[in-house]
Formats: sequence, C-alpha cells, structure tokens
Amino acid sequence: MEKTLQMSLLFDFYGPLLTDRQQHVFQMYFHEDLSLGEIAEQLGISRQGVYDLLKRSSTILEDFESKLGLVVKHLTRQEHFTVMLALLEQLTTSENEMLVLQLKERIQRAQATS
Amino acid sequence: MEKTLQMSLLFDFYGPLLTDRQQHVFQMYFHEDLSLGEIAEQLGISRQGVYDLLKRSSTILEDFESKLGLVVKHLTRQEHFTVMLALLEQLTTSENEMLVLQLKERIQRAQATS
Repeated sequence: MEKTLQMSLLFDFYGPLLTDRQQHVFQMYFHEDLSLGEIAEQLGISRQGVYDLLKRSSTILEDFESKLGLVVKHLTRQEHFTVMLALLEQLTTSENEMLVLQLKERIQRAQATS
Repeated sequence: MEKTLQMSLLFDFYGPLLTDRQQHVFQMYFHEDLSLGEIAEQLGISRQGVYDLLKRSSTILEDFESKLGLVVKHLTRQEHFTVMLALLEQLTTSENEMLVLQLKERIQRAQATS
C-alpha cells in the first residue's frame, strides 16, 4: 500500500493515542501536505526536529498496529462489505425490494462503524 | 453491562497493550476466576499487590476504550450483523437460496473480524 495512504489509515485508527503535538504535526505533513521545512518554520523548530517527531509518531502508530491489527481487520471487513453489496444487487427483485433496502442500509451502517 | 463481561470485552480488544504480567494476572482473575488470595499465593506477592495490579490494568484498558471506543463500535456492529441475518432469513426463497447463503457466509466472516 502507498506509504501516505497507509499512514492515513494508521492515523484514523490510532491517532487519538498520539499526543496533541504529534497529531498536529502528523496532520500538517500527511493531510495538509506541508513540507518538513514549512512545518519547521510554522512551529519555530528545526527541520530535523520535525523529522524526528514524524518518525516517532509513525513508529508509535505502527507499533499499535502490530499489536492490535485494526487496519488489517478494517480492510478485511471492508472487502466483505463490498462483496455483500454486490451479492445484494443480484438478489434484488421487485418483490423483495424493501427487504433488500433495509439490508443495504444495515450493511452501510456496519461499514461506517470502524 | 456486567463488570466481568465488560472487562472481558476490554481485554479482548486491548489485552495486547498490557504487559505480559498484567495480562497474566488479568486472565487469572477474570477468566480463570481465581480469588485475589489465590493469585497472591501463586505469584508469591501480597493480596494488595494483586489488587493494585488488577486496578492498574483495568484503568489502562478503560483509558484505551475512552480514546478508541473499539468495544462500543464492536457492539454496534454486532447489532447490525444480527439484524442483517434476520433480514436475510426473510429474503430466502427457493430461487435465491445460493445467493443468500453466500451473503450469509460473508456476514459471518465480517462478524468474526473484530
């Protein structure tokens, strides 16, 4: 998986376990796409300081994933949900339309609970 | 929710984040149902020591839940899965039996991925 996407996913699941400062710098770099230099300037710290902070944050996130595996489980579940929705399409007939809609809604709600 | 059940669920999700010793004592108390005195004797530490260890472990688990909410999300998802399976029962006809079985299997696999 692409590094930035992987980091974003890890942050989605374990972000609250980082300190406020770590979360802030992580978002500047991975979500706002600022450079190390730009972040350093904004925070009044060295480029190396920003790098170390990001490196440390990534290690923490990866360490939690190696212990809890939430991202892997999330991706596995999403795959199941995708297949379920595809199977449901095939199941739909004019007679069972309402039931299928209810089922679809439940799948989407379960899908959103990650 | 009953305290022991709640603790078991928290342990299922965040157990790997405790130290080996914390996990061991937690399991002796909540899964093997040993008393504080029995655990103290087995480990050669004081009853108070066992109590403190359990108290500390519970606090750690609850702290992770307050940050990540995995147990709450898990319970919400399980509820959706239960409803999905019930809806599927209503959907089953002799013509769509195979599709329904495939859908059911996917739901169960997603359900097991927690």
